Amino acid sequence: MPPLQPPAPFVIERLVRLALEEDAGRGDVTTAACVPPSLIGAATLRARAALVLCGVPLVREVYRQVDPRVQVRAIAEDGARLDAGDDAVALSGPAAALLLGERVALNFAQRLSGIATTTRRFVDALPEGSRTRIADTRKTTPLLRALERYAVRAGGAHNHREDLSSAVLIKDNHVAAAGGIEQAIARARAYAPHTSRIECEVDTEAQLAVALGAGADVILLDNFDDAAVRRAVATTAGRAILEASGNVTLERVRSLAEAGVDVISVGALTHSAPAADLGLDWEPA
Amino acid sequence: MPPLQPPAPFVIERLVRLALEEDAGRGDVTTAACVPPSLIGAATLRARAALVLCGVPLVREVYRQVDPRVQVRAIAEDGARLDAGDDAVALSGPAAALLLGERVALNFAQRLSGIATTTRRFVDALPEGSRTRIADTRKTTPLLRALERYAVRAGGAHNHREDLSSAVLIKDNHVAAAGGIEQAIARARAYAPHTSRIECEVDTEAQLAVALGAGADVILLDNFDDAAVRRAVATTAGRAILEASGNVTLERVRSLAEAGVDVISVGALTHSAPAADLGLDWEPA
Amino acid sequence: MPPLQPPAPFVIERLVRLALEEDAGRGDVTTAACVPPSLIGAATLRARAALVLCGVPLVREVYRQVDPRVQVRAIAEDGARLDAGDDAVALSGPAAALLLGERVALNFAQRLSGIATTTRRFVDALPEGSRTRIADTRKTTPLLRALERYAVRAGGAHNHREDLSSAVLIKDNHVAAAGGIEQAIARARAYAPHTSRIECEVDTEAQLAVALGAGADVILLDNFDDAAVRRAVATTAGRAILEASGNVTLERVRSLAEAGVDVISVGALTHSAPAADLGLDWEPA
Amino acid sequence: MPPLQPPAPFVIERLVRLALEEDAGRGDVTTAACVPPSLIGAATLRARAALVLCGVPLVREVYRQVDPRVQVRAIAEDGARLDAGDDAVALSGPAAALLLGERVALNFAQRLSGIATTTRRFVDALPEGSRTRIADTRKTTPLLRALERYAVRAGGAHNHREDLSSAVLIKDNHVAAAGGIEQAIARARAYAPHTSRIECEVDTEAQLAVALGAGADVILLDNFDDAAVRRAVATTAGRAILEASGNVTLERVRSLAEAGVDVISVGALTHSAPAADLGLDWEPA
Amino acid sequence: MPPLQPPAPFVIERLVRLALEEDAGRGDVTTAACVPPSLIGAATLRARAALVLCGVPLVREVYRQVDPRVQVRAIAEDGARLDAGDDAVALSGPAAALLLGERVALNFAQRLSGIATTTRRFVDALPEGSRTRIADTRKTTPLLRALERYAVRAGGAHNHREDLSSAVLIKDNHVAAAGGIEQAIARARAYAPHTSRIECEVDTEAQLAVALGAGADVILLDNFDDAAVRRAVATTAGRAILEASGNVTLERVRSLAEAGVDVISVGALTHSAPAADLGLDWEPA
Amino acid sequence: MPPLQPPAPFVIERLVRLALEEDAGRGDVTTAACVPPSLIGAATLRARAALVLCGVPLVREVYRQVDPRVQVRAIAEDGARLDAGDDAVALSGPAAALLLGERVALNFAQRLSGIATTTRRFVDALPEGSRTRIADTRKTTPLLRALERYAVRAGGAHNHREDLSSAVLIKDNHVAAAGGIEQAIARARAYAPHTSRIECEVDTEAQLAVALGAGADVILLDNFDDAAVRRAVATTAGRAILEASGNVTLERVRSLAEAGVDVISVGALTHSAPAADLGLDWEPA
Repeated sequence: MPPLQPPAPFVIERLVRLALEEDAGRGDVTTAACVPPSLIGAATLRARAALVLCGVPLVREVYRQVDPRVQVRAIAEDGARLDAGDDAVALSGPAAALLLGERVALNFAQRLSGIATTTRRFVDALPEGSRTRIADTRKTTPLLRALERYAVRAGGAHNHREDLSSAVLIKDNHVAAAGGIEQAIARARAYAPHTSRIECEVDTEAQLAVALGAGADVILLDNFDDAAVRRAVATTAGRAILEASGNVTLERVRSLAEAGVDVISVGALTHSAPAADLGLDWEPA
Repeated sequence: MPPLQPPAPFVIERLVRLALEEDAGRGDVTTAACVPPSLIGAATLRARAALVLCGVPLVREVYRQVDPRVQVRAIAEDGARLDAGDDAVALSGPAAALLLGERVALNFAQRLSGIATTTRRFVDALPEGSRTRIADTRKTTPLLRALERYAVRAGGAHNHREDLSSAVLIKDNHVAAAGGIEQAIARARAYAPHTSRIECEVDTEAQLAVALGAGADVILLDNFDDAAVRRAVATTAGRAILEASGNVTLERVRSLAEAGVDVISVGALTHSAPAADLGLDWEPA
Repeated sequence: MPPLQPPAPFVIERLVRLALEEDAGRGDVTTAACVPPSLIGAATLRARAALVLCGVPLVREVYRQVDPRVQVRAIAEDGARLDAGDDAVALSGPAAALLLGERVALNFAQRLSGIATTTRRFVDALPEGSRTRIADTRKTTPLLRALERYAVRAGGAHNHREDLSSAVLIKDNHVAAAGGIEQAIARARAYAPHTSRIECEVDTEAQLAVALGAGADVILLDNFDDAAVRRAVATTAGRAILEASGNVTLERVRSLAEAGVDVISVGALTHSAPAADLGLDWEPA
Repeated sequence: MPPLQPPAPFVIERLVRLALEEDAGRGDVTTAACVPPSLIGAATLRARAALVLCGVPLVREVYRQVDPRVQVRAIAEDGARLDAGDDAVALSGPAAALLLGERVALNFAQRLSGIATTTRRFVDALPEGSRTRIADTRKTTPLLRALERYAVRAGGAHNHREDLSSAVLIKDNHVAAAGGIEQAIARARAYAPHTSRIECEVDTEAQLAVALGAGADVILLDNFDDAAVRRAVATTAGRAILEASGNVTLERVRSLAEAGVDVISVGALTHSAPAADLGLDWEPA
Repeated sequence: MPPLQPPAPFVIERLVRLALEEDAGRGDVTTAACVPPSLIGAATLRARAALVLCGVPLVREVYRQVDPRVQVRAIAEDGARLDAGDDAVALSGPAAALLLGERVALNFAQRLSGIATTTRRFVDALPEGSRTRIADTRKTTPLLRALERYAVRAGGAHNHREDLSSAVLIKDNHVAAAGGIEQAIARARAYAPHTSRIECEVDTEAQLAVALGAGADVILLDNFDDAAVRRAVATTAGRAILEASGNVTLERVRSLAEAGVDVISVGALTHSAPAADLGLDWEPA
Repeated sequence: MPPLQPPAPFVIERLVRLALEEDAGRGDVTTAACVPPSLIGAATLRARAALVLCGVPLVREVYRQVDPRVQVRAIAEDGARLDAGDDAVALSGPAAALLLGERVALNFAQRLSGIATTTRRFVDALPEGSRTRIADTRKTTPLLRALERYAVRAGGAHNHREDLSSAVLIKDNHVAAAGGIEQAIARARAYAPHTSRIECEVDTEAQLAVALGAGADVILLDNFDDAAVRRAVATTAGRAILEASGNVTLERVRSLAEAGVDVISVGALTHSAPAADLGLDWEPA
């Protein structure tokens, strides 16, 4: 895998701005009352449990927008595994600014690290040396897809298609509308950009055979059990990429990989990852 | 509790538009290839497990923006408890539009129903007739606070302060900057809108006594164990509202409520609720 | 009062950008024709009458966006009382940029200083040592609330609730809908965040008694004359915060304060303050 | 004058949306607690003092965005002179929606009617049958220029140039940069769109002569007293349009018009007009 | 090819709004002066030369936003070939609204029809029954990509990848950075979503052989002459999709297709298509 | 002509941001896979054919937003005539950033240089020393008017009115609605800002006489042939500015200028200019 790349600065800038407007756009009445503008402080973003870190560029951008005088120094990098007590980011500067941005910074870092941590568990559940990849889905939090896909990469997994435009994925309704799997695949082939593979979801082994015959590049095996997956791998014999999906649990990752699928896609990476336990510890003045 | 009120239409309109631009703004290449524009379809949003429904106005707005010809009929209302198999929303109209909006509609409904469902579990864990309220925190997903606070209400709990401007909450750093709890409370009292209560976080019973003496309206007991909470309730004797916070689990809700706190605030309602299991079932053509 | 704090940089950035797009987004045809890009100039923002200054961060941001080479040096700070002829801000840099931003900078500074100046007159009309506070209302210019509330603080007064979400203010229609003052207060108490006080508007002394009995935290005396205010203060006897409102003139501030109300709220601070007389004087080349 | 035309719907839509987000985007906690969603109400926007009405399309759009079920019926039209007690707009529909939008609707209507009312006073101060026009300036509230220029038209006056791009107005700094009035006018003539007149500000009668000689189309007489204005009119003898500006009071309008200027521009129309006294009277349920 | 699908309504809504703000956001001073609001008019959008029509949904949306009372009736559909004099769209409604929106509607329709018309010429230049497809590139007008890709489809051609995220296209700089074609393809294969094909640009036949050996799915032959293209087709023998690119003129389309490439991509479809000659003819009143 | 002035920084910032979001907002999957973040590169924007350069501030802003570490050095300035092979801009910095922004930078530079180049051809077609000006129209690409007007100035021509608000241009429909040319001109004169000239379009010499008699400041001769133009110039005798418009080709510019019109307006400058041939040449590593 190449070095991890965060979303472009202008993407992060916009999301952070909206988040700051949401939480702090009308000011911080407590801090304004209690904290002299001249007071300088320092704090450390620190793991309170084992986790995979993700969100450092967001923390940096939060403070750039709140007050450019805040210094943000990364101690660990996104994608790093931290143990409870490990430092992630050192912050220093006007205390009022540190307080104003604290919750937004933490909300980003806890969520993205939560996704990275959950993802990493799935990736680590693969057999050693496995060529199977764990992939995300489009089941992301509305408005945060770019960030959540980044967190999935920080956790060591792969991204699936970005959105409805960036690849073909034929589901049962498309098949029904087109009049059959062959027709759907043929239409998609004729219409889609030539840079896109054609993926087709199948529910049964009979459908798998049809999809293979119609030349699907990728086949999504929806809710196949392990035995069916093994048979599908044998039937396919490398003619298509096989993706297993549907209620994939951590426990089942190994057997699916051993059954030989190329991709295991997991909606829970993004739709159900609990927040990671990161906190801001303030240095004594 | 009064009838549940969703965010205003212009709030929902904007969030749905951004979400649609994210997933479907460049089109749906699969549907464009396979589904004739004239094809009409119907589908039902349905619970696949027991859950508390939330997100119907979002589903409605998604389809209003995708294609106003789609009919959206609520079968259940937000806040309703559904069992696995129960219908939530009936959809009918151009099949291509139903497909284009499906993932965005589900992403909203699954996330908000997930929060409502988790919230409802905490509310149901209160002793019968309890006057203690469960409350959310500012640990919401960036950009979605209005929706997530709504989901918390749909789950039967209460909202905490909206943002940094809408109430005073003095934490240890404010105390340190102000030179003590008394000073912090006095400054906040002098500065904040007269419509705001003054809440002060305390870590120890000694601090509690100081905060009470300084006239705090609300006191946040941070990580107090049950015995300490009981002593705090006795000490306070109604002079302030008491809020318990810090790693509150479902199991501990009852004992906290029985100890007599007024409010139990739970970050996990919004930062760690797994998605609820809702799906779109298509009617056979 | 703590040091005056302007809105966060990202708030000011956005409003200034919209204002510049409005006036200068299509260019300055006169300056483009007449002023060589290489010409350097200097100018001073100066009071032309006695006023309370407000808007320096806006002037600074205007020129940061127009041309970062413009130097902006504050000679006086927001909240300062200036006499006619006093300097406020010194500007130097490319003359074309100074001209392009001049009107937007002045429009912000004149309006905000106008509010601060009007506000300061109300504050100064309080008896010496008075504990009564002058407060603004939600009668602000659409889109500029954050700035106008800041100008009110610059004038030495207090902010009322930020918006419809940040505190409860029960008016006659709420009372009518709820079935009475007691019911309205009880419902609001049960529903609103526990960090919010419950304010109730009353038109008569009879209503005041009911509101007090129902436990209102704050009572807004709407259009009470001075004698009625005095009786209300006596009746209330510290059980609630009393706010006087309704066509409050400068002349009446003293008697209202002496009558003992805690808060005098004045819509005219923001809805009817004339612009302050500030101008930009150019240094001879 | 042709019938009054409000800004285009998409302009009003955007400004109203931003205003609603500002005041009501996070909900109306009081109304949510007290007002059942099913309750229907009615109210009338009514003048509480003599005024010129302006803002009906804004009121209409506020309620369209808050709840399309609200009925908005104009009783008077923008530009109409109302006496205290006259009805302007009749509203009916869900009471919760009426309450949610009330303040935003009033803030728009009061401000715009305030400008229209002040403007009308200036227009009415012209001698009967005068051909002199009253005009606004660019001294408008940032972000609201389109609305405030509309209010000026509603008050019977004329608009000056829209922004820095839409006409040439040479001031002393442009003259200094260009090396003289002749040079500035020549450069502007050579550069500006051929649809734009060239206006030049002059401080003295000597400058007036130069500007006339250089072929200025419009000359702004800055702070000329009445006698100087009369001499300028005589000197100009119809060769240019003459605009008088600078601290124009209501009292001076007549003499300026009688002196023969073509245009009197008044910054105070928009920067210092007090809000008009309009209120919402609720019908008894 | 399936029926032509325009971008989603929320995409068109946003672009039209921005275009209207640009041209008409400050009003139409001529129309306001001359055209009574009550005047009704009718006009027809008509081809003044042979062209392929594109832009009807844009025209419709322009008038929906300007004044919903305007009736917009499509006489021809996007993608239709019109001769000089053929009608495209019939408009009727308030004349002031028809005039206000005219230029924006025409600017969209002329540009998109220009692209569709140019595209159609390239498609028609293919040999009868050819399986070669004409494709666009990312050389689109900034901010209008969604519309211009639609116009390309209206002209009968195909879209290439949507943006930098939606497919892999390895160019010489990627090859240099990765250390060779094999390494670049291997890295892209390992990193990119499994739904994406891997396209690699080659400048020479030697590079082609390497790319084929490395398993590229699509190979872009950059500036190959016809003989080299024929040899490349023979060498490739169906192992990869071949795309020809680089200064493709209308004259060369046939020979390239006959040489057997699968795709001919043409930047000029979007970056250099002249506007189509469409005008609005007004019905006599 | 004064030195060329680009649109203000905040205008360019916004358009570049939208363009980058469009092409690169979801990342660059090829570059992320193949190019190490630490790799430094250099490239030169270079003319591949003779052209007039326009777009340097856009290239600069693209890279400022993509990665501020990229160095952008202008070798030539906007408005300069380049020959094939001439360098325009030197770029150096992280190779991944150079690649991410390349297409957006080129799309801006090619389009704007295309307009500047086409414009320059029209300007150069004027007779030596001619006082006739070439002007653009409102037939610009939606959303890009500010940039395209700048490109027209870079090509040595003049801008026409900015938008519908910034000057009066009476067309046949306005005449019909107003009841005649005299009435339309009188109404416009009475209504429009006094800074605006009144332009009237005429189709015949009879209309020209009427417009002159009614005092039009500018007359647009629509589709007059050269002989008619000459007669119109004679008839007008300096009483109005004459603008020729309607299918003006490069070939006809000289004869129109020699016929004596003041302005020749050409829609094709912006609606049909082909992209200029600029490319990015990478330095060998």
